[in-house]
Amino acid sequence: MNNSRRDFLKKASLLSSVAITLPSLQNDVFAAKRFNMSGYAAPKIDKVKVAVIGLGMRGPGAVDRISYIEGAEIVALCDRHADRVAKAQTILTKKGLNEAKSYSGEDGWKSMLKNEELDLVYICTPWEYHAPMAIEAMRSGAHAATEVPIGLTVSEIWEVVKTSEETKKHCMMLENCCYDFFEMLTLNMTRQGLFGELVHAEGAYIHDLLSLNFNKNGYDNMWRLRENMRLNGNLYPTHGIGPVAQCLNINYGDKLNHLVAMQSADFMMGDKARELAAEDSFYNEFVGKNFRGNMDVTLIKTEKGKTIMLQHDVTSPRPYSRLHLLSGTKGFAQKYPQEGIAFGHSFVKKEELDDLYKKYTPELVQFIGEQAKEVGGHGGMDFMMDWRLIDCLRNGLPLDQSVYDGAAWSAVTPLSIDSVAKNSRTVDFPDFTRGNWKTNTPHDMSLNGGGNTGIRAKVEDKNIQLDV
Amino acid sequence: MNNSRRDFLKKASLLSSVAITLPSLQNDVFAAKRFNMSGYAAPKIDKVKVAVIGLGMRGPGAVDRISYIEGAEIVALCDRHADRVAKAQTILTKKGLNEAKSYSGEDGWKSMLKNEELDLVYICTPWEYHAPMAIEAMRSGAHAATEVPIGLTVSEIWEVVKTSEETKKHCMMLENCCYDFFEMLTLNMTRQGLFGELVHAEGAYIHDLLSLNFNKNGYDNMWRLRENMRLNGNLYPTHGIGPVAQCLNINYGDKLNHLVAMQSADFMMGDKARELAAEDSFYNEFVGKNFRGNMDVTLIKTEKGKTIMLQHDVTSPRPYSRLHLLSGTKGFAQKYPQEGIAFGHSFVKKEELDDLYKKYTPELVQFIGEQAKEVGGHGGMDFMMDWRLIDCLRNGLPLDQSVYDGAAWSAVTPLSIDSVAKNSRTVDFPDFTRGNWKTNTPHDMSLNGGGNTGIRAKVEDKNIQLDV
Repeated sequence: MNNSRRDFLKKASLLSSVAITLPSLQNDVFAAKRFNMSGYAAPKIDKVKVAVIGLGMRGPGAVDRISYIEGAEIVALCDRHADRVAKAQTILTKKGLNEAKSYSGEDGWKSMLKNEELDLVYICTPWEYHAPMAIEAMRSGAHAATEVPIGLTVSEIWEVVKTSEETKKHCMMLENCCYDFFEMLTLNMTRQGLFGELVHAEGAYIHDLLSLNFNKNGYDNMWRLRENMRLNGNLYPTHGIGPVAQCLNINYGDKLNHLVAMQSADFMMGDKARELAAEDSFYNEFVGKNFRGNMDVTLIKTEKGKTIMLQHDVTSPRPYSRLHLLSGTKGFAQKYPQEGIAFGHSFVKKEELDDLYKKYTPELVQFIGEQAKEVGGHGGMDFMMDWRLIDCLRNGLPLDQSVYDGAAWSAVTPLSIDSVAKNSRTVDFPDFTRGNWKTNTPHDMSLNGGGNTGIRAKVEDKNIQLDV
Repeated sequence: MNNSRRDFLKKASLLSSVAITLPSLQNDVFAAKRFNMSGYAAPKIDKVKVAVIGLGMRGPGAVDRISYIEGAEIVALCDRHADRVAKAQTILTKKGLNEAKSYSGEDGWKSMLKNEELDLVYICTPWEYHAPMAIEAMRSGAHAATEVPIGLTVSEIWEVVKTSEETKKHCMMLENCCYDFFEMLTLNMTRQGLFGELVHAEGAYIHDLLSLNFNKNGYDNMWRLRENMRLNGNLYPTHGIGPVAQCLNINYGDKLNHLVAMQSADFMMGDKARELAAEDSFYNEFVGKNFRGNMDVTLIKTEKGKTIMLQHDVTSPRPYSRLHLLSGTKGFAQKYPQEGIAFGHSFVKKEELDDLYKKYTPELVQFIGEQAKEVGGHGGMDFMMDWRLIDCLRNGLPLDQSVYDGAAWSAVTPLSIDSVAKNSRTVDFPDFTRGNWKTNTPHDMSLNGGGNTGIRAKVEDKNIQLDV
């Protein structure tokens, strides 16, 4: 059922041709009309009707997780491939839940948005489809939640922001790493002032996906490998920047000002393509192509003079790391290669770290953390994210990640591509909040009247997650 | 005996006015005359007559260490302050060694170079004096060894290189971290191909010196704090870049092409100055000054498409780190926060790491490592460096660090200052080898006919090292 590469590119080109225009900062008419989505509390939704688009690597896990959340009902499932939809239906039926409506084919998602009354469209398609689908979802009257990134180009990211403001629909980027345990702990500790004023932070997506990206049975039509040929920058910045940007109050008192990015040459993907092609002609088309450099390092300066270092490497044979490093005037935290917190020259001992977890684990994690570990999804963080999203929608609470967060974090991709192409030149960030970062306040981590959303049952069959 | 700040600045200005000119790359006359010091074997010296200049924070330790090396004789000691010279003499006399000649006062070092027949001048003065003193030492007929950095400006670094080539005297920058145990192990493993081709490397000098730099009884006339007011960039890059540059064969098949540097604002030094001044008027002069940003991150691209990330932070309350991270096509190593080596997704277990140490610890460390630990100096690396330097001079071997290494590594300071001042603009490295990097070969790690230099005695009184 795999489409040919030509079909893929045709489709991609079709999507890129969706009318996306960069709103001018001088466009006063638009600026005057704009609505600030930061802190926006949408009307309460008692039963959240959810559609999931994209049932390849990430979608089935989402279907599984959401099916455990009371107050959420998966009413539609969509994928280009009908067999994937049928398979995902069994996740629901095996639990005794109703089958959802099925949509497939190239334009299945459009029919779905037209035909269904949806509260939330949950998008797990390849990167290139996120922005167009989120935009159309909001226009159809639903909130949108999209896998990372929220968009691949600055202009389509602007369009996502604009559409959210115009429709007053949320568009939350599903940055699951913001919900991991150490990240939640250190966000709360930052807010309680334990690290003093943050000065520098680091994040990364370092994950050896060389074999997975070259796996014939992996990403649909090898899309992720193709992106590593098409784009030359930090292609996956949000897992790294998301959690530290929350700690730094980016968009809520501070903002990303500019970046520089530097990238190594490719020393692995070209060789891998040649190696595989020698045994299997399937890989011939990847031989002699220019692949993305193996390591990208991007440096970001904020308005308040803080620095963020991001790294991206998906080919090197090295241990997984998102870094998650916070360095402040009073303390320090780093997650990889092992969790450590320091208030001076030495890391605190294991017992003291345990005490910090006891004292500063936020309410959300205390409430749902253990159940989330049972449901799974990268150790629980995915479920905490999904549960929190549904709970906020049900209780009419602002979301933890506004559209401006997904926008700013995702913008690292096109801006780093630009910087790399220009020999690491300094590139400015757009201010997607258009000045509102000065007065926006950080999201409230407390359950804050929520917490009334239960869980259906304990999980029996855990989905294997191939990829964070 | 402390000089006033005015005297310090007067002296500094005097030194800066030493005629230092940037040799033009187009200067064919000079280029034709130039001699390539890479791989240069100076005539053997049976008994190496050593003078040490600068007996503050680093000098006394050097005197102590060198006094254990057979074949080295400390014949002169020099410091601006006579009392420091007298104190350093006791390091020798307590061991039953002859007193050295004493030199002190502002121009003591010049008198010393004029009066003494020296083989090696070992320079441990404040940063600003390294280049002028090394240049004069070579001109006087001695080899020079200088604490890091080899110079603070591009023009004075060029002058050091030129003087070394003209006089055929070595100028080795004393990059002791190249001799630490994990660094030596990973250099050898790199050369044996265990990491494959290196793609990316990291180094740092992250050391909380906030209190030491503000200590009235620390660095002479607060010189190090003053440098943190005068210069805004990576002021101490060599501990980080030295060991990884050796692994990357920088100057020996590859070269540093360009850098970008980004720096946070200062969130600590200004506050510290105010805090201290409130209790002690001594600190009044530091209030309201512009201090260097707390964290500097510098990215370097090499000719062969590799990347190096360097960090510098001497104020944040966090554990010490030089990072020392190597990422290659086949393997990975990182030293901090704990030594780890990986050949894929997981770090090798403790026993396997021990086996790697057994198998790949280079000859030098096998020969002198245990004794070096006993003598001390940052756990032994300082002594390995000193012993190796003396042994190479005695056996007429090329040094492990050529003048081009000290030059390239030190150049990060002025170039990062330039980049930071220009909003992280890309800045090109000078090629101090003038093209010879293409054919130069890496230094030979083996003892290679050396190893006949003994050690006088076991140490009784270890010097406390305040600072790496």
